[in-house]
Amino acid sequence: MPLWKIYHPEGAFSIEDKTAISGRITEIYRNLPKFYVGVVFQEVPKSSFFIGGEAADDFVRIWVDHIARQFNDEELKGRFLAGVNQALSPFISDRGLRWEMHVDETPFSLWLIQGYRPPLPSSEAEKRWRAENRPTAY
Amino acid sequence: MPLWKIYHPEGAFSIEDKTAISGRITEIYRNLPKFYVGVVFQEVPKSSFFIGGEAADDFVRIWVDHIARQFNDEELKGRFLAGVNQALSPFISDRGLRWEMHVDETPFSLWLIQGYRPPLPSSEAEKRWRAENRPTAY
Amino acid sequence: MPLWKIYHPEGAFSIEDKTAISGRITEIYRNLPKFYVGVVFQEVPKSSFFIGGEAADDFVRIWVDHIARQFNDEELKGRFLAGVNQALSPFISDRGLRWEMHVDETPFSLWLIQGYRPPLPSSEAEKRWRAENRPTAY
Repeated sequence: MPLWKIYHPEGAFSIEDKTAISGRITEIYRNLPKFYVGVVFQEVPKSSFFIGGEAADDFVRIWVDHIARQFNDEELKGRFLAGVNQALSPFISDRGLRWEMHVDETPFSLWLIQGYRPPLPSSEAEKRWRAENRPTAY
Repeated sequence: MPLWKIYHPEGAFSIEDKTAISGRITEIYRNLPKFYVGVVFQEVPKSSFFIGGEAADDFVRIWVDHIARQFNDEELKGRFLAGVNQALSPFISDRGLRWEMHVDETPFSLWLIQGYRPPLPSSEAEKRWRAENRPTAY
Repeated sequence: MPLWKIYHPEGAFSIEDKTAISGRITEIYRNLPKFYVGVVFQEVPKSSFFIGGEAADDFVRIWVDHIARQFNDEELKGRFLAGVNQALSPFISDRGLRWEMHVDETPFSLWLIQGYRPPLPSSEAEKRWRAENRPTAY
C-alpha cells in the first residue's frame, strides 16, 4: 500500500522523471513506512491505448490501490487529491499531456509484506517499520 | 471511469480490431462523456499467462474498474453484462478464444481527471463535459 | 476469479518457475474450478519499478482480485495468507527477493466467463464446471 500503476505514452518519462515522480508520490505518504509505496510505470503504445474509442499518445492513466489507510473524511480526500494534482502537474499537464487517476481502497486484512501481516495504523510496530524502512517480526 | 484492461495473447488483435473493440466498449457507456472510457490492451506471451495452472495462448482476460456510476439494480447488471457479451463476441469467442471479465466498483470521491474532480452523475456540468468531450472547470 | 497479477524483476522467474508458481496458486483454490484461476506475470525493468521512491530490481509486487468467494471470517483470511506465504516463499523470499501482496474482493454479480454468469458457490452447476474444468450452460 499504496500501489500506483502509471500507464503512459512511449517515451513520455525519462528515468529521471520516473525517479522524481515516484519520490513525490512517496512524499505524499510521509506518515507511512517508505517501502509501503510501490510505483510501477508502464509504457503503452498508441496502438494499444484508447480514450473515448480513439488511439491516444498523449494520455497518462493512473490507478491506485490504498490498503494501509482508508479515508473516512471528505475533507481529507480533497486534500489528498489536491496534493496529487500538485505533485504530478509538472510532469503531466504542464507538458500538455491529458490524464486521469482513480483510487480504490482494499481490505487491510488481506495484505502481506514479506510474509508479515502489516501492523495496525500508527501502532508501535508500524512506527518501527517506518523508522527502519523495512518489515520485521513484531 | 471506466478503465478497461484487456490481457490478450500475442497477435490476437490487429490495430483495426483494437479500434473496433474500444469503439464498441465506448458505445456501451454512451450516457457518459466519451473521454471517460479508457481501454488499455496488453499482449501477454504464453509463457507468462496461466489459466488453471496451464500456460495459455487462447485466453482473453479483462478487468474493469467502474467509477462514474455504480449499479444499484440487478437487472441493470444483467443488461450490462449481456451488452458486453454481445459487443465482444465477434472478436473473442467467435474466433475460438476463451475469455473472462470482471468489474469492480471504486469510489467516485477518489477520482481526478486533469486535476478536476468529475461532476456528479447527470449534472449540468457532466452534460457539458459529455457534449464537449473534454473536462473543464465548473 | 481469482486473478493474480505478478510484477517481477527482469529474469527473476524461468518458465519452469512460472509454471510451478501458477500451479501452487491454483492448488490454493482447490475447491474452485481450475480454470477460474488466472495468473499473469509481468517483467518490470528496474527503471520502471519503484519502492519507497527508489528503483528496485529485487521486488515482487502481487495484486489479486477475488471474485468467486469472499472471506467472511478472520481465521480463514489468516489461513489463506499463511498458505500463500508458504506456496511462494521458495520462489521469492528464499531467493532473497522482497515482496508484497494484497487482495481485493470484487462483486460476484459483475463477472462473466465466456458469456456465462458463473454459478453460485458450491452449487451443482459449479461442481460440474469444476469436474469438467470448463464453463457450460446451466
